Amino acid sequence: MASTGQIYFDKVTIIGTGLIGASVALALREKGLCRTIVGFGRKEENLKRAKERGIVDEYNLDAAAATGGADLVVLCTPVGMLKDVTVSIRAALKKGTLVTDVGSVKGALVAELEFVMPNGVDFVGSHPIAGSDKSGIGDSRGSLFAGARCIVTPTLRSSKAAVDKVIALWELSGGLVECMDPFRHDEIFALVSHLPHIVAYALVNAAERTDPGCVEYSGGGFRDTTRIAASSPELWRDICKMNRDNLLNVLDSFKGNLLKIEQCLKENDWAGIEKEFSKAQKLRMSIDK
Amino acid sequence: MASTGQIYFDKVTIIGTGLIGASVALALREKGLCRTIVGFGRKEENLKRAKERGIVDEYNLDAAAATGGADLVVLCTPVGMLKDVTVSIRAALKKGTLVTDVGSVKGALVAELEFVMPNGVDFVGSHPIAGSDKSGIGDSRGSLFAGARCIVTPTLRSSKAAVDKVIALWELSGGLVECMDPFRHDEIFALVSHLPHIVAYALVNAAERTDPGCVEYSGGGFRDTTRIAASSPELWRDICKMNRDNLLNVLDSFKGNLLKIEQCLKENDWAGIEKEFSKAQKLRMSIDK
Repeated sequence: MASTGQIYFDKVTIIGTGLIGASVALALREKGLCRTIVGFGRKEENLKRAKERGIVDEYNLDAAAATGGADLVVLCTPVGMLKDVTVSIRAALKKGTLVTDVGSVKGALVAELEFVMPNGVDFVGSHPIAGSDKSGIGDSRGSLFAGARCIVTPTLRSSKAAVDKVIALWELSGGLVECMDPFRHDEIFALVSHLPHIVAYALVNAAERTDPGCVEYSGGGFRDTTRIAASSPELWRDICKMNRDNLLNVLDSFKGNLLKIEQCLKENDWAGIEKEFSKAQKLRMSIDK
Repeated sequence: MASTGQIYFDKVTIIGTGLIGASVALALREKGLCRTIVGFGRKEENLKRAKERGIVDEYNLDAAAATGGADLVVLCTPVGMLKDVTVSIRAALKKGTLVTDVGSVKGALVAELEFVMPNGVDFVGSHPIAGSDKSGIGDSRGSLFAGARCIVTPTLRSSKAAVDKVIALWELSGGLVECMDPFRHDEIFALVSHLPHIVAYALVNAAERTDPGCVEYSGGGFRDTTRIAASSPELWRDICKMNRDNLLNVLDSFKGNLLKIEQCLKENDWAGIEKEFSKAQKLRMSIDK
């Protein structure tokens, strides 16, 4: 954890003004960290709303034009589009520009984005843990990152000055920053984020296939367990694609634990099942402490 | 859905003054549906707190003594103890007493409890969908059942008068009552409640076994998906035991859906994975409407 430095950007470009992108803009503005914010997105209607609400000062439907002259570019598109959009703004990035992203996948993606950057432009990856099944500017707010963990993933290619600025950006937005190797990031998030999404999608599909209409009887348990199954299928398809190998590993581990419980059920081993449940309860209760 | 009738009980006995039992007592009192409430439980300390807070008027550490003379007995112990505690109060039940329960399992249990009842005593099973990972009187409140679905499970042996009273009890407590065959109840709740608990326990154990300490990075997704893994291992061991066959069935269905996603990952079938996710998203979003 670095100490918070002072930063100020004359022009910030937000590439992708969804929930996270709009919240980054609002946080930067509320904390007085920039002069002008320009938004880029695919839907003009959404960009117009962002301007009307004061989330951005201007917008442009051309990514390169939106980026020209920016001191800070924050890439907030779904992860599957990050590389292409970065290639499309490459020529518009001026020397000294700082680029970061907010993607849920790091690892190889960080290496690819570093590779695309022109000389003199720094890229440092970020992942603020502040997403939800919601998307769109309707739920955006400057306080979204307050108290949220923000992973920053420097590499051997990152300049210390650029890393410090990205750390300061999130800390000044209220986030709790932790630096981490991008590949280690993907191992951890396969387990605590990507696997739970797959499990939630599979649970909902199991309910639907086995007994359509039964979900009408769901209480808080089913609702909470499957809340993230309302998340964007396109986004999560791309996250699965980009973290495939880690995901297959943790899926194996999950299946192993599930089969252990199934075995107890089949063998009427109630002491065994209680042992599994107790182990999980203990760990789960420790998270909320 | 029956229309709400008028009911009044001179003496109510709550067997098991945990979250649900204490909330039933508070609801009955707030709605003016009874004169005296007597509590039975295993821990005197807990019963004392219940009396101090006005949840019960009296308590007794002997279940039969607590039950003597009651017009209504509400069985609120963990499901694994329901049969034994009913046997222990059998001799104290007077003719005309109405007995119901709040257990998450019905099916064979309802038949067993009906069988234990003396002549002239009616048992009608209930399951208010108002539990959570919380337990204990600290979280109890009379409004716990307001807007909550309450399943009532009459059988061919149930008298219409007794069923109507149990329906009225929950409706006057704010619940949305639905009558259902006890075995059908267990099929549905295997899918929307018991399976999600097993999945949540297995997810937490997978995280712990694969990468201890990683849960510290969990965001809302992991926390929500595994919230119910903080539930009582003893209670859920007994629910698994009592709904074992339905649970093994729905576990098979869940594994099938999980393997379908795994197959897509292994074969890099990203259109296939998006199709699975979209199907789940559509159904999940329909629940909250």
